[in-house]
Amino acid sequence: MTTLASEVDIEIRQQLLTHYRRIRGETEQLADPLSAEDMQIQSMTDASPTKWHLAHTSWFFETFILRQYLRDYRQFDPSFHQLFNSYYNSLGTPFQRPQRGLLSRPDLDTVFAYRHTIDSAMEKLLTDGPVNKELEALIILGLNHEQQHQELLLTDIKHAFSINPVKPAYTDSSHEDDSQAPAHILEWLEIPGGLYSIGAEGEHFYFDNEGPAHQQLLRDFRIASRLVTNGEYLEFIEDGGYREPRLWLSDGWSLIQQDQRTAPLYWQKREGRWYQFTLSGLQPIVEQEPVCHINYYEADAYAAWAGCRLPTEFEWEAAVWILRKPDQLATANMLEQRSFRPVAPAPGQTQFLGDLWEWTSSAYLPYPGFRANSGAVGEYNGKFMCNQKVLRGGSCVTPADHIRISYRNFFYPHQSWQFTGIRLAGE
Amino acid sequence: MTTLASEVDIEIRQQLLTHYRRIRGETEQLADPLSAEDMQIQSMTDASPTKWHLAHTSWFFETFILRQYLRDYRQFDPSFHQLFNSYYNSLGTPFQRPQRGLLSRPDLDTVFAYRHTIDSAMEKLLTDGPVNKELEALIILGLNHEQQHQELLLTDIKHAFSINPVKPAYTDSSHEDDSQAPAHILEWLEIPGGLYSIGAEGEHFYFDNEGPAHQQLLRDFRIASRLVTNGEYLEFIEDGGYREPRLWLSDGWSLIQQDQRTAPLYWQKREGRWYQFTLSGLQPIVEQEPVCHINYYEADAYAAWAGCRLPTEFEWEAAVWILRKPDQLATANMLEQRSFRPVAPAPGQTQFLGDLWEWTSSAYLPYPGFRANSGAVGEYNGKFMCNQKVLRGGSCVTPADHIRISYRNFFYPHQSWQFTGIRLAGE
Amino acid sequence: MTTLASEVDIEIRQQLLTHYRRIRGETEQLADPLSAEDMQIQSMTDASPTKWHLAHTSWFFETFILRQYLRDYRQFDPSFHQLFNSYYNSLGTPFQRPQRGLLSRPDLDTVFAYRHTIDSAMEKLLTDGPVNKELEALIILGLNHEQQHQELLLTDIKHAFSINPVKPAYTDSSHEDDSQAPAHILEWLEIPGGLYSIGAEGEHFYFDNEGPAHQQLLRDFRIASRLVTNGEYLEFIEDGGYREPRLWLSDGWSLIQQDQRTAPLYWQKREGRWYQFTLSGLQPIVEQEPVCHINYYEADAYAAWAGCRLPTEFEWEAAVWILRKPDQLATANMLEQRSFRPVAPAPGQTQFLGDLWEWTSSAYLPYPGFRANSGAVGEYNGKFMCNQKVLRGGSCVTPADHIRISYRNFFYPHQSWQFTGIRLAGE
Amino acid sequence: MTTLASEVDIEIRQQLLTHYRRIRGETEQLADPLSAEDMQIQSMTDASPTKWHLAHTSWFFETFILRQYLRDYRQFDPSFHQLFNSYYNSLGTPFQRPQRGLLSRPDLDTVFAYRHTIDSAMEKLLTDGPVNKELEALIILGLNHEQQHQELLLTDIKHAFSINPVKPAYTDSSHEDDSQAPAHILEWLEIPGGLYSIGAEGEHFYFDNEGPAHQQLLRDFRIASRLVTNGEYLEFIEDGGYREPRLWLSDGWSLIQQDQRTAPLYWQKREGRWYQFTLSGLQPIVEQEPVCHINYYEADAYAAWAGCRLPTEFEWEAAVWILRKPDQLATANMLEQRSFRPVAPAPGQTQFLGDLWEWTSSAYLPYPGFRANSGAVGEYNGKFMCNQKVLRGGSCVTPADHIRISYRNFFYPHQSWQFTGIRLAGE
Repeated sequence: MTTLASEVDIEIRQQLLTHYRRIRGETEQLADPLSAEDMQIQSMTDASPTKWHLAHTSWFFETFILRQYLRDYRQFDPSFHQLFNSYYNSLGTPFQRPQRGLLSRPDLDTVFAYRHTIDSAMEKLLTDGPVNKELEALIILGLNHEQQHQELLLTDIKHAFSINPVKPAYTDSSHEDDSQAPAHILEWLEIPGGLYSIGAEGEHFYFDNEGPAHQQLLRDFRIASRLVTNGEYLEFIEDGGYREPRLWLSDGWSLIQQDQRTAPLYWQKREGRWYQFTLSGLQPIVEQEPVCHINYYEADAYAAWAGCRLPTEFEWEAAVWILRKPDQLATANMLEQRSFRPVAPAPGQTQFLGDLWEWTSSAYLPYPGFRANSGAVGEYNGKFMCNQKVLRGGSCVTPADHIRISYRNFFYPHQSWQFTGIRLAGE
Repeated sequence: MTTLASEVDIEIRQQLLTHYRRIRGETEQLADPLSAEDMQIQSMTDASPTKWHLAHTSWFFETFILRQYLRDYRQFDPSFHQLFNSYYNSLGTPFQRPQRGLLSRPDLDTVFAYRHTIDSAMEKLLTDGPVNKELEALIILGLNHEQQHQELLLTDIKHAFSINPVKPAYTDSSHEDDSQAPAHILEWLEIPGGLYSIGAEGEHFYFDNEGPAHQQLLRDFRIASRLVTNGEYLEFIEDGGYREPRLWLSDGWSLIQQDQRTAPLYWQKREGRWYQFTLSGLQPIVEQEPVCHINYYEADAYAAWAGCRLPTEFEWEAAVWILRKPDQLATANMLEQRSFRPVAPAPGQTQFLGDLWEWTSSAYLPYPGFRANSGAVGEYNGKFMCNQKVLRGGSCVTPADHIRISYRNFFYPHQSWQFTGIRLAGE
Repeated sequence: MTTLASEVDIEIRQQLLTHYRRIRGETEQLADPLSAEDMQIQSMTDASPTKWHLAHTSWFFETFILRQYLRDYRQFDPSFHQLFNSYYNSLGTPFQRPQRGLLSRPDLDTVFAYRHTIDSAMEKLLTDGPVNKELEALIILGLNHEQQHQELLLTDIKHAFSINPVKPAYTDSSHEDDSQAPAHILEWLEIPGGLYSIGAEGEHFYFDNEGPAHQQLLRDFRIASRLVTNGEYLEFIEDGGYREPRLWLSDGWSLIQQDQRTAPLYWQKREGRWYQFTLSGLQPIVEQEPVCHINYYEADAYAAWAGCRLPTEFEWEAAVWILRKPDQLATANMLEQRSFRPVAPAPGQTQFLGDLWEWTSSAYLPYPGFRANSGAVGEYNGKFMCNQKVLRGGSCVTPADHIRISYRNFFYPHQSWQFTGIRLAGE
Repeated sequence: MTTLASEVDIEIRQQLLTHYRRIRGETEQLADPLSAEDMQIQSMTDASPTKWHLAHTSWFFETFILRQYLRDYRQFDPSFHQLFNSYYNSLGTPFQRPQRGLLSRPDLDTVFAYRHTIDSAMEKLLTDGPVNKELEALIILGLNHEQQHQELLLTDIKHAFSINPVKPAYTDSSHEDDSQAPAHILEWLEIPGGLYSIGAEGEHFYFDNEGPAHQQLLRDFRIASRLVTNGEYLEFIEDGGYREPRLWLSDGWSLIQQDQRTAPLYWQKREGRWYQFTLSGLQPIVEQEPVCHINYYEADAYAAWAGCRLPTEFEWEAAVWILRKPDQLATANMLEQRSFRPVAPAPGQTQFLGDLWEWTSSAYLPYPGFRANSGAVGEYNGKFMCNQKVLRGGSCVTPADHIRISYRNFFYPHQSWQFTGIRLAGE
């Protein structure tokens, strides 16, 4: 039981509680269209079952908050400590990730009971317990963690459904047929070079990997006003892009040879027409919409084919600040819109934030002076700083209040089950 | 629509209907203790989800009977033709076996609706439709097929539950503590050599692989009066059996080196005591009970260590006839006993039939003159006649009216998730 | 040092010595066309480098004979005990098989020095030492073992050369162009059923797996007068044989799907014409010649397509005795002919023995009453009696004095780098 | 045949020729202690046979220079175009890398004949042919390429020999026993922050990945005066470094779990004492010497354990310039010293350049404004700019005139068969 230094005031407690209820409730709403069986399945090692997401996010609050801060708190079920630990090796060996889909027990009702027990305890802690700055920070971390799993819940079930020949739809929100709309013209925005301040600092929440804020020296560059579209990507495919080794990074070329890949994940051709699997089931490709479920190698090869390159994460962040994009976050196509797919920007608008995570050419590395948190929470971000690429901007399934200009998402170059797309840059 | 030659009489129809209802009902009873999530999971490629078993057995009646014989029958759902085809390549490419556990759709309610639609249609066919000898044979085949999946349903869920650290119990039938009972003495039964008639013939049902009946020349041999026990197998382990290459077939030695296996599947040592995972959860090893979940290599190595050998399938069949064992089938420890585990024989009794499938040294090969059925049903048994071993006798989870003295079960030598055990033989 | 019971006489010693020199010399002659680099390479786990064969065969004499029987014999190099042990686990862990090709040291000169040291010691033992029946038997075993490796030496280098795009030729013996010759007509030979004596007995040498001699009850059958030809097999290919699942054993169908196999090993189509890689390099397919490098699944599928089946090993042995084939061994196409490929039978001749090992439908199992030798030599044959199929008759690269009617060769069903072919049988 | 613009003068030709002879001769000298069999073997996919290195480096001159620039040049052997192409996919599909060790043909004599034919043609071109700036640049590129393969030749044969239980020595240069010498004290060198010019520019040779020269903004940092020693690394091991997940990057922890790694590559404990396999065979660990054959994960974990971090490649380059290390290149422990192992620095000396490649924390990425060469030579460096880490400084097997301060070597984090070590840095 940690001793608490200085209490936060009642208003902050009240805000935390409201925030907590909203975010925890959102997770359950997202699970609502799914059956117990849907929530059980795991289609690959990278993905987890919905039920596991529901439990693991609760485990986070139990492990890092309730067991530390709530007097007399008793674990809901000691076996959960292993079952729903994701990757915190310093807390013991987690249950093996590739077999999460085999945990039919605890059943869904028990997992919901777990959630509700955690919620009651959290309410009690937030209402009656001592809450200091450190605890406040952990709660906000727990809620941001929960939001990350909201996004994963959707991308993971999309992958699982894609395997099923009956092509289930998560939502019946139909795609409007805007296939006759004119394509949105790609404009090049010129950004001047110089020293830019990069990364987060200050009182608001950000993940440890977003700091320390520091300066980066950039050269003049230009950046595209919108994401690459399905129509543009189809030109790349039809021009033989998947057959020309000179366009590809060596590891990417090996991968597409080995997987015999000739189009993005979820694309398939039926009777001469291209379709993609979406959260609304199998749908025809709409040329004006951004191309998505692109891995890094595809993004890089497309950029090479187009005579461009991908932006660095620093260029992206600098451009977004200069272009005053943060003001437009409210109108971005994100989780709250419930579109569950990327869309073309409105006429006359540039397209930044939301829609798709954008691959940058930057490796996911610590910023100068980075130090991971001490304790088990320190395993959160730092230990993944190798072999991955930074993505920026959030997607159509990211909660809008979860994203920040300084937000650094990261995936391996071969991964494409997230909502990922391409923004071009150049000299 | 096949034209029917000669009708079977009303009494046979009535028997078929009773039989059909009983067996189909038994499958659903066996699934009863399981939740929708339990029925969804698949823990390895060899195993299938319970839900898949429920659907596939119905698919068998739909595909081979209703679509051929019931006028105006319409498929319940055309997508099921691929989803629930097991391995009949001549009917189209089946859905990939290792991913059966990902089919959250159709959901369990739909699968039960499928079963009940099939059942209604079968009832209609058996009540009103034309039923000739050929159709009668197919129905009986379908019911025997269903019984095979009853056994698999139990062994597959046992394997899936074994992965889960909470060690779920399928049944709460507790194991009696007979650990103080005296061990049942192994006697050697002497069987004279000569020409023996092997295999099935006649009007009753048997699988194509049990015929043609034919003669086999046997030499004098002796055969053990009961299965090898846990206590005896423990002696083998403690004598270094898993470390002595001379006892093992070459492929078996490679396997145990690679898997670092030092005891049977489902055994584990906790604080100096041996336990095994059972359908009643984790239970202490009882020395008098037959050792089970033994693969062929282990059975063969144990026999070598004991200075004996395994019987051939012909020796086994000859011995069982000579010993008049078929009369005792009614009292055998089989599915209907709901023990869900092998038990020691009653005092003064020999132990044949039920309890455990017994590995024989015979390769699974066609009997002289064997011909597979024509048509897709012909893929049933013949195409597996390579690389597998014959097992005889049925197990504690085999329905009693499913087994026959001529019954030939077959598994790969490395497999042990079935209820398999060891009977010794010698010169 | 084993004590010797009764000496063999001088004439037998002399014969043994002559025999020893001839066979050991033959091995070196077979290696003669190869460079040190050729003798170093290992193209797959099943195969071994030539240099390893040269050393291992010497290791056999050193380990089982010289170290036991020659007074004051000192090991040539103690490290060889591990390096050149093939699979005798009871003598210690052998050097890992898949990496034999990495043993550049000892170099070839040292391996030849090893051979010659062993030869000198063996000559000394045969000339001066005490030689009893047991030692005589071991020497003959060692020489038969050496002959087995002569065959492997050729099949292994053929496989290794086949990987090399320059398609090296082991021999420049050109294939005669007999492509215009008429095809040899396949006749069916009728063999009456009855009790046949199978297996070896008596004073002459045979491997332990050929005994005990015993009776087998056979039914009437017929057997083809020659092997299946390339031309016949091409018809199978062109009829879609590799695309029709009903023709294949389940494991075979999986294998050809996985490997995308559409023709036998070593076949390739260039500009519309079929070629096969041979020990004389890449050569056009000759239709009249026997089809070779066939795995068991292919042999079985071909037989099914042809409306026939493969013979059992017992049928094969019975037929060969009845047809008085042993008399023709002298004219068979075997290693001494140095053709290094199967050929069509001479006009008017039936084709048995030599040319190709013939897949039988029999699993490789112990004969009734079989007991492996005690001691490490006992690992020779018995421990492989699982998962393999029996082949009979010897091939174009088997030494003629190595083969017997009772000879049982054995390989896994998927293997085809040996000279293997198809003989049809039927009712 | 490319038209040549402006000739280089006779003195440069002469220098090129001298340079060419020296470097080509060095490669052959390095192969000299090896037998034809040694030069044949390939112990893993990352490595190549010596013979292949000898041929491939000649192929480089033939493909990019002689076939383009030498009038009437005829290919030595057209099949070599595929066989000895490493990874230039735009020139056709190279022979599959993992099977280079199977190319016993062409034999070693032919490969040497190939080398000498190329050498004669190159001499002719350099003596008589037109040589312009572009050709000069290609020749220098070819010679640098040859030097890279000199290093690989040694690291690859070291790996191959390490598999062999007889532990062959490449060289008999014995390791001096300096085990009683005092450890060299690690000092911290303080480097001030600021804008530093990074990368190569100007007329001298450098690889495309070393440019463009550009500015990097660095913060104050400190850097160790020497490499981490075996003694220090042993402390890490003995302190449980390989068992503490918090010290490791996530991918690194997975790797050591999977490989059950508890010490660096080539280390083994015999009777309580640590040894390492070296180019002089198995040798006791000397505590004062730098620890080598460390992968990135080990380097990073060690640094974390020591409370430090690895330097970025920019910090490394800045530090080396400030410390005026380039002047000391002449005395560095590099290939010409023929020590074939890293050594402790001389008393009073700092240790930079030579000994070991130093892992930096920098991902291998293009410098701002980087463009790969056009044409097939453009596949040289750029396509590997993903998933790898930059190493700096050269090693004990790098030719001294091959290294530069701006030199960027790159390997995957899991690789450790190069001579790689650890330099610490910190704030």
